[in-house]
Amino acid sequence: MPEFLYGHWAVMEALRARRRNLEQLLLTENVEEKDMVADIVALAKERGLKVQRVARRIVDDLANGANHQNVVLRVGPYPYADTEDILSLAQQRGEKPFILLLDLLKDPQNVGVLLRVADAVGVHGVVMQERRSVSVTPAVVNASSGAVEHLQIAQVNNLVNAMKDLQSQDVWLIGLDIGPNVPPIDKADLNIALGLVLGSEGEGMRRLVRDTCDMLLSLPMRGKVGSLNVATAGSVALYAAWQARGWEGWKQE
Amino acid sequence: MPEFLYGHWAVMEALRARRRNLEQLLLTENVEEKDMVADIVALAKERGLKVQRVARRIVDDLANGANHQNVVLRVGPYPYADTEDILSLAQQRGEKPFILLLDLLKDPQNVGVLLRVADAVGVHGVVMQERRSVSVTPAVVNASSGAVEHLQIAQVNNLVNAMKDLQSQDVWLIGLDIGPNVPPIDKADLNIALGLVLGSEGEGMRRLVRDTCDMLLSLPMRGKVGSLNVATAGSVALYAAWQARGWEGWKQE
Repeated sequence: MPEFLYGHWAVMEALRARRRNLEQLLLTENVEEKDMVADIVALAKERGLKVQRVARRIVDDLANGANHQNVVLRVGPYPYADTEDILSLAQQRGEKPFILLLDLLKDPQNVGVLLRVADAVGVHGVVMQERRSVSVTPAVVNASSGAVEHLQIAQVNNLVNAMKDLQSQDVWLIGLDIGPNVPPIDKADLNIALGLVLGSEGEGMRRLVRDTCDMLLSLPMRGKVGSLNVATAGSVALYAAWQARGWEGWKQE
Repeated sequence: MPEFLYGHWAVMEALRARRRNLEQLLLTENVEEKDMVADIVALAKERGLKVQRVARRIVDDLANGANHQNVVLRVGPYPYADTEDILSLAQQRGEKPFILLLDLLKDPQNVGVLLRVADAVGVHGVVMQERRSVSVTPAVVNASSGAVEHLQIAQVNNLVNAMKDLQSQDVWLIGLDIGPNVPPIDKADLNIALGLVLGSEGEGMRRLVRDTCDMLLSLPMRGKVGSLNVATAGSVALYAAWQARGWEGWKQE
């Protein structure tokens, strides 16, 4: 079944990454071919795609009413990876594994933001459970500004089994938690083979997921208002981990 | 002119903080008084407020069509602070000043997220320019989960003048920037009297704002996709600064 990606960056990065089957570019009938739209059309043509103008309501429909910025790309399904691919990429880069694990996150916007940051800090891949959580839908691709088109994402049947499998391959799993007696994020050496585990919105990690972690760390808070959104907390934790790893792989221009 | 705050946390925190004139609580006619709505009604009554049930379309209107979660609070205007109040709070707490400065941010969602994080890391206040940027609207209060009701926010005529004023009082201003030759965020000691300056979405800091900073730092990125959203980047930088300050003021339960 084809999928319909929408939004400038989602479409652009799918065209750049070339990991999906690229089928057709659709534009609303009145959009001008300038700035980013011009770049998208040029790259689509370079990739041999048919570019078609259609009525705005068709584009609205294909994007499920989301803010599509006048472009929709018809593509094949998202190419999921598995945990072995993720560990291979670490080895290939000569780096200690750096993995993000998501336990039953529900909101495409949160998942998209986290995947964008995961790309920015150079994780080798992301592990998510297949059922009862968000998968890589066009809304997630859009919210990640297309970053997910370059990332390795493994969908697993059972997150706890995947965690045990990673532990057997010497990956150390750290859960981001709240609550009493959880030490702050900088109180452990994160410059290790690391899997960072985030729980779902509101409910946090499931009990068995939390119990399977090798260690729990927290993000300190001193304000008047309750816990931070998981996308914000997870972004801060991903950066704290990358900072602890000495910004490995960062090339300044 | 009254304002209409909406959403559970926005309404709850305004009732808790008691900094605005609290006028009336409105509920949609069919909402059940349980969970958080019950807590809100109880606190509103404790504050001596009239609680009224009205048709949903009235609540929709008052909240400008936003997701109001069936509650609207009629309140007086937001009580802005000034930079002296911010410096006084630092002194009163016996802490080196920790201030967030926003240069012409436009998106209420971004500003709300940043203010929520600013509260979480315990900044003494936030400085924003009065014109051409977002002010503390009900949308910002909602996006901050009500955190802004507890924060000191100074609206200034001219951000550059406010920056110079802070510098004359020994606050060191660090701008979060991108681009070549900007050192990463952990390459300076942030455990100082600090103002963190963030530029607007897309355009970054205005030139004169950038030139007025004492130092520029960047958030490293190694991914395939362009710069991070200012709310994400700013959240990471605020936490990096608080971490450098040894989580000052954090009381673990």
